Amino acid sequence: MPDRSLLDTFPTPADAPFIIEHVHDDFTSLCPMTGHPDFGQVTVRFCPTPADAGGTCVELKSLKLYFHSFRQEGIFYEAVTNRIRDDLADVMKPIWLQVITQWRGRGGIRSRIIAVMGEVPPEWRQG
Amino acid sequence: MPDRSLLDTFPTPADAPFIIEHVHDDFTSLCPMTGHPDFGQVTVRFCPTPADAGGTCVELKSLKLYFHSFRQEGIFYEAVTNRIRDDLADVMKPIWLQVITQWRGRGGIRSRIIAVMGEVPPEWRQG
Amino acid sequence: MPDRSLLDTFPTPADAPFIIEHVHDDFTSLCPMTGHPDFGQVTVRFCPTPADAGGTCVELKSLKLYFHSFRQEGIFYEAVTNRIRDDLADVMKPIWLQVITQWRGRGGIRSRIIAVMGEVPPEWRQG
Amino acid sequence: MPDRSLLDTFPTPADAPFIIEHVHDDFTSLCPMTGHPDFGQVTVRFCPTPADAGGTCVELKSLKLYFHSFRQEGIFYEAVTNRIRDDLADVMKPIWLQVITQWRGRGGIRSRIIAVMGEVPPEWRQG
Amino acid sequence: MPDRSLLDTFPTPADAPFIIEHVHDDFTSLCPMTGHPDFGQVTVRFCPTPADAGGTCVELKSLKLYFHSFRQEGIFYEAVTNRIRDDLADVMKPIWLQVITQWRGRGGIRSRIIAVMGEVPPEWRQG
Amino acid sequence: MPDRSLLDTFPTPADAPFIIEHVHDDFTSLCPMTGHPDFGQVTVRFCPTPADAGGTCVELKSLKLYFHSFRQEGIFYEAVTNRIRDDLADVMKPIWLQVITQWRGRGGIRSRIIAVMGEVPPEWRQG
Amino acid sequence: MPDRSLLDTFPTPADAPFIIEHVHDDFTSLCPMTGHPDFGQVTVRFCPTPADAGGTCVELKSLKLYFHSFRQEGIFYEAVTNRIRDDLADVMKPIWLQVITQWRGRGGIRSRIIAVMGEVPPEWRQG
Amino acid sequence: MPDRSLLDTFPTPADAPFIIEHVHDDFTSLCPMTGHPDFGQVTVRFCPTPADAGGTCVELKSLKLYFHSFRQEGIFYEAVTNRIRDDLADVMKPIWLQVITQWRGRGGIRSRIIAVMGEVPPEWRQG
Amino acid sequence: MPDRSLLDTFPTPADAPFIIEHVHDDFTSLCPMTGHPDFGQVTVRFCPTPADAGGTCVELKSLKLYFHSFRQEGIFYEAVTNRIRDDLADVMKPIWLQVITQWRGRGGIRSRIIAVMGEVPPEWRQG
Amino acid sequence: MPDRSLLDTFPTPADAPFIIEHVHDDFTSLCPMTGHPDFGQVTVRFCPTPADAGGTCVELKSLKLYFHSFRQEGIFYEAVTNRIRDDLADVMKPIWLQVITQWRGRGGIRSRIIAVMGEVPPEWRQG
Repeated sequence: MPDRSLLDTFPTPADAPFIIEHVHDDFTSLCPMTGHPDFGQVTVRFCPTPADAGGTCVELKSLKLYFHSFRQEGIFYEAVTNRIRDDLADVMKPIWLQVITQWRGRGGIRSRIIAVMGEVPPEWRQG
Repeated sequence: MPDRSLLDTFPTPADAPFIIEHVHDDFTSLCPMTGHPDFGQVTVRFCPTPADAGGTCVELKSLKLYFHSFRQEGIFYEAVTNRIRDDLADVMKPIWLQVITQWRGRGGIRSRIIAVMGEVPPEWRQG
Repeated sequence: MPDRSLLDTFPTPADAPFIIEHVHDDFTSLCPMTGHPDFGQVTVRFCPTPADAGGTCVELKSLKLYFHSFRQEGIFYEAVTNRIRDDLADVMKPIWLQVITQWRGRGGIRSRIIAVMGEVPPEWRQG
Repeated sequence: MPDRSLLDTFPTPADAPFIIEHVHDDFTSLCPMTGHPDFGQVTVRFCPTPADAGGTCVELKSLKLYFHSFRQEGIFYEAVTNRIRDDLADVMKPIWLQVITQWRGRGGIRSRIIAVMGEVPPEWRQG
Repeated sequence: MPDRSLLDTFPTPADAPFIIEHVHDDFTSLCPMTGHPDFGQVTVRFCPTPADAGGTCVELKSLKLYFHSFRQEGIFYEAVTNRIRDDLADVMKPIWLQVITQWRGRGGIRSRIIAVMGEVPPEWRQG
Repeated sequence: MPDRSLLDTFPTPADAPFIIEHVHDDFTSLCPMTGHPDFGQVTVRFCPTPADAGGTCVELKSLKLYFHSFRQEGIFYEAVTNRIRDDLADVMKPIWLQVITQWRGRGGIRSRIIAVMGEVPPEWRQG
Repeated sequence: MPDRSLLDTFPTPADAPFIIEHVHDDFTSLCPMTGHPDFGQVTVRFCPTPADAGGTCVELKSLKLYFHSFRQEGIFYEAVTNRIRDDLADVMKPIWLQVITQWRGRGGIRSRIIAVMGEVPPEWRQG
Repeated sequence: MPDRSLLDTFPTPADAPFIIEHVHDDFTSLCPMTGHPDFGQVTVRFCPTPADAGGTCVELKSLKLYFHSFRQEGIFYEAVTNRIRDDLADVMKPIWLQVITQWRGRGGIRSRIIAVMGEVPPEWRQG
Repeated sequence: MPDRSLLDTFPTPADAPFIIEHVHDDFTSLCPMTGHPDFGQVTVRFCPTPADAGGTCVELKSLKLYFHSFRQEGIFYEAVTNRIRDDLADVMKPIWLQVITQWRGRGGIRSRIIAVMGEVPPEWRQG
Repeated sequence: MPDRSLLDTFPTPADAPFIIEHVHDDFTSLCPMTGHPDFGQVTVRFCPTPADAGGTCVELKSLKLYFHSFRQEGIFYEAVTNRIRDDLADVMKPIWLQVITQWRGRGGIRSRIIAVMGEVPPEWRQG
């Protein structure tokens, strides 16, 4: 089941603000109503708290394993999206965090969910 | 016939505002004048009332079955669009709701109907 | 001949404002000078008066038959456009109405006519 | 020779302002210097004076014949453009009028002439 | 050699301001250093002084012959561009004049020269 | 291992500000968790400190060798990006520096990291 | 070796400001570290000082020969760009000068350098 | 339910062989296992028996109503395809008949079924 | 685990040969070496044994559930492909069967496996 | 260094012939002349010896590690390609084997190398 403890972090490797984007194309969980598999893409963007403020970044392999931990979980799209936002917000306490999930359709319906935390930083606009 | 009672909800899984978009490509109902089938796409976008205010989100399978309940209904495009908006507004009471239907033509006329409730939230612009 | 009485309406199915767009690709009438056929596209967009103010919407099949009633009519492009706007304005009394006709050429001249009534509503911008 | 009297008009079929655009791809006149034929496209856009102010619109077949009356005329591009603007302005007295001619080259020179009368109306922007 | 006296003008055929653009694809002159031929495109745009102020427009055939008069002239791109601007400015005294030359390469270098006189008029933006 | 001492510089060849962009498509390092190779693109943009202020620019071959020095290093994406920014900032002390890394996926996750130093200079906008 | 003395000029052929752009696709010099050839595109844009202020423009054939004089020179991209800017600035003393070099890659790194002098003039925007 | 008697025909209007293709984008039936709606595209291609051999062609409006008669039928994709082939073969007895159905996915599986009768005629290869 | 007994069939609905293609975009199983999830697309094409020879076709929902039964199975790509071919061959005994799997990459390697049974039928070439 | 012993195999999971294709986009080795890194894509296609003849298939993770073992090896493109073919042929003894390498350029030259063993099987043509 989704397991926040899988999320490892490492100290932010910089005092200056910077931006990180991770895109995972093969997310899968189960529909809580039917048990059938759901498939989607998860995009995570964040600006970590700087090193001198004790900030951390999520480690990529642990993020992959954390995503895998949803594999057998019956959970709504909306809950997936907010769960990822909340778990990442808790373990990293970033300055800005945006989680977007896009789902390849169940019952003929395609869905997209957007959850955010904080303001869009200027560095994102520069990239 | 269209049956609002088919719409199930579950508690909004977050206190922070977020955005949900569902797109259904295979909506079908009947023309109330001729009985011929109509075919269209339904897009539903909303920002649910947060969890701490008792908000709910529509459950996806129930949304599919609700859409299917229009299959043998003789109903105007305009009524379909407003009916969906009203039914979703009633069962969810969201902060923002937008329903767009696009119809693949009847009698040589292509149509598009837009019904809204509330103001466009900033999270929609960020996604 | 163009026959406004062909236009049926049904009560606006909502108290909240919404937007309707109908596009007809195969409009045809006759040139009033030469009797030759004209061919064009008619786009109708409107925001109906709400239900609680006694508003109505044009019924689609009747709109098709109304468009067909121009088939043997010798009538100027400009008159077609304003006639449609006026007829639809009279039978519906909408908040906003826009009629655009595009003509595929007569005597080597391609034409486009735009007639409006009321201000562009915010819902149109949202869609 | 160009003959303004060929331009017929009919009463503006509406009291509300609206926009008309006519595009003629096969305009031809003669070079006043060499007698060689010139070929071009003429675009006419206008907002007629409303019906209740006694406004008129140019009739399309007469516009075509008027354009044809330039066929044997030796006349400069600039004069064609202003002549059309002046003639149409005189017979219609519109609120706004724009005439654009584009010429497919004479002596290896392609030309475009723009003549206007009045301010661009908001209806043009809506279409 | 370039001969301003070749430029004929005719009285501006209108009192209202309008815009004229001439594009000549086959301009040729000689490189003043090597004697090799140069080939380029010349674009001339202007707003003539109105008729009631005694304005004139350049006559197209004379413009062509004027362009041809550069054929055996050894002259720099920059001088061509300014010479055309100066000659046209002198014979027409327009309200606005813009001359752009684009050259198809000499010694592996492609060039573009822009010379202007006066402010861009609003009519240019409308076209 | 990543070796800043590989970075050679040469005196900024100008007193006026200017902009430099280097794009390296074949960056590779090792995942610090698994030892598996990572592959990505590195974009470096900077405005050097002018010559009269003692500024320097990074030498391109040394930059290539510096990038190669990450080949056997186990290092996080985020650290690579900030390390490059910090190393380049230290050896060059530029007015503006932007480092963007894009990674072709590890564990099914594609990543992009953006690190900056200083304000975007006007010269970048002009190019 | 790069030889500024190759740059010939001629008096600016106008008192009014105008814009010149030269693009050279086949610039080549040598890497100062390895002696291998570098290939790139050079774009030069400038607004010359007017004739009545004693301004001059660079002569095109001399510019070509000047570019050719880099062929056997071991020189950094940055130095090429600034050298060209400085040499052209010195021989012409223009109002505005912009030099952009784009390099097709050495050691797997593609580069672009932008050097400017003065403010972007309004004539550049008009073209 | 699917009703072959809805299919009307008319005599083939030619003695020479020719080819007819009808594509219906909005076919819908029900899954016989779940009762959920299926949506697909039906392509019918045939070469009718010539007029002098007593051949017939299917009438288009009757074909539409025949397709509509599947709307509430629980039937497999494979049976739909063969049923259409058999019904059309029986009422028309064509020389060649090909029915292709493409289904927009149920349970994440997209399907395509091809049923034929007779040999591909040379006329089809020419189109 | 992969469970052939999940595969239901129904009698082939035709005596004439025809072709069926099913494409499943969201197949997932586990790597038998690492336990990490694999993701791929499965394409199944077959020509069933005709009805009068006692042939059967695989039922679509059962095929979906059969695919889902690989979700927690540690199995090589090659074994998945042959397993699907063998299971479908056994339950349907078709005239022709082709199974193609395409995998979205594990460890930076994309794979495709093709397993067949029987000869390609002419109907496949017609579609 | 390249290490054949890293290649693990597992018994071919079928008696019938089938085809396997693996594509690795991020192969890297070192140039034996300069020590600089080379980057390329490796495609491996084979038809394994069937199970009942004792055939084996290469295991994917071991193939990845085998590819990684070239990372610090100074080796020519041609030698890489043949080495992979020879090593895979030895550990699998397949019926057919094809190895294609494509290299992203060193010194401005892009290369492709093809090495094969055995005849192309008919199954490859069907996919």
